[in-house]
Amino acid sequence: MENIKTIAFDADDTLWVNEPIFTDTRTKFEEILGRYISINETLEKELYAVESRNLRLFGYGIKGFTLSMVESALELTDYQIHGKDIEKIIQLGKEMLEHPVNVLPDVAGVLDILENHFQLMIITKGDLWDQENKIARSGLIRYFDKVEIVSEKNPETYAEVLRRNGIETGEFLMVGNSVKSDILPIIELGAKAIHIPFHDTWAHEVVDKSEIKGLPYIEMSKISELPDLLGV
Amino acid sequence: MENIKTIAFDADDTLWVNEPIFTDTRTKFEEILGRYISINETLEKELYAVESRNLRLFGYGIKGFTLSMVESALELTDYQIHGKDIEKIIQLGKEMLEHPVNVLPDVAGVLDILENHFQLMIITKGDLWDQENKIARSGLIRYFDKVEIVSEKNPETYAEVLRRNGIETGEFLMVGNSVKSDILPIIELGAKAIHIPFHDTWAHEVVDKSEIKGLPYIEMSKISELPDLLGV
Repeated sequence: MENIKTIAFDADDTLWVNEPIFTDTRTKFEEILGRYISINETLEKELYAVESRNLRLFGYGIKGFTLSMVESALELTDYQIHGKDIEKIIQLGKEMLEHPVNVLPDVAGVLDILENHFQLMIITKGDLWDQENKIARSGLIRYFDKVEIVSEKNPETYAEVLRRNGIETGEFLMVGNSVKSDILPIIELGAKAIHIPFHDTWAHEVVDKSEIKGLPYIEMSKISELPDLLGV
Repeated sequence: MENIKTIAFDADDTLWVNEPIFTDTRTKFEEILGRYISINETLEKELYAVESRNLRLFGYGIKGFTLSMVESALELTDYQIHGKDIEKIIQLGKEMLEHPVNVLPDVAGVLDILENHFQLMIITKGDLWDQENKIARSGLIRYFDKVEIVSEKNPETYAEVLRRNGIETGEFLMVGNSVKSDILPIIELGAKAIHIPFHDTWAHEVVDKSEIKGLPYIEMSKISELPDLLGV
């Protein structure tokens, strides 16, 4: 992998733990609803259906997710859920926003090495306020020359980020855990991408295997393999 | 006003109508709560207290405001509010997100003149997804060389915006309706600012008159006075 001058990292589930916080919250949400209805697979599907329907209006992030939880809870309980339980659901959202930022293993060590050789960036999507808070609390900000928080990760937004930062496509590498958001749009632009899968993936980010067969990107099991691959 | 090369505009209530949408929603919110409790001044104060308390976690924007409305409604009705009414409150938030973007009078004409003489920017705070949608729907994007959506407007964030866009403080003019967000931090940086008051101001943005007495900024009643003042 030659000529790379800038490496951009996705943040959630690439630099720090994120989806397990949502997974854990969904479990607590089901516990609350379990007092009203029988818990089965439909419940999680129902919440995801509400989330998906609201995405166009709310975008990504915890606040929209919390509103979708409240909306699902009303629908699933036929509006019988008690106000105290609605309050508990909002509280779940607040706990997510205050959750400690747990940096993934080896991330700091790898950034320590890479910062001497490359311009490092964060490109993350989601809620501006929440993402900025997480970046600040991660303790990793000193490694990054630039931080870009975008509302959606598609070829257009990546092209705009590269343009406004004066980065050549051929000198750019994106590293992330989501094939849909961190890999496919980058390949479409003609830049390089490395996929580091995370064990927990939001349904919205899941890509069918047939879509990615033979595509020119590298999959890596651990971020600690990155310096070797880049020859530093 | 000499040496100005870049003019940045605040968006909400400077380029288009915003606070009246919140004011209108607060009225509808009170109508819903009126079925449970007597409507008086305390109610609006209570909602603002919840909003202020949540600001640290939610940041600015409609989704946080909607969650604060639900929370206030639960507290004010002692958790007796019906699920159907909680759903109506969430619906109010969705209607805000879909509200048409009404560009203020003379804005397009003024931008038409200014774009030939200055680099034009938008600097707005709030929710990334919502602000981007509003900018796109405003039809004004073609006038602006740069758009910066920030999580908070303070001297630090303005300094960072100027730095990353290579703008000299002495060549920068900010135009906006909020003394607190668009004027005071700009004066602190040593740049120039023009205040164009809007008739409706969120309590959070209101500044005591004693704080602004004698400060070096210009107040203008209409945006249409801007080209003359700038000599174009």
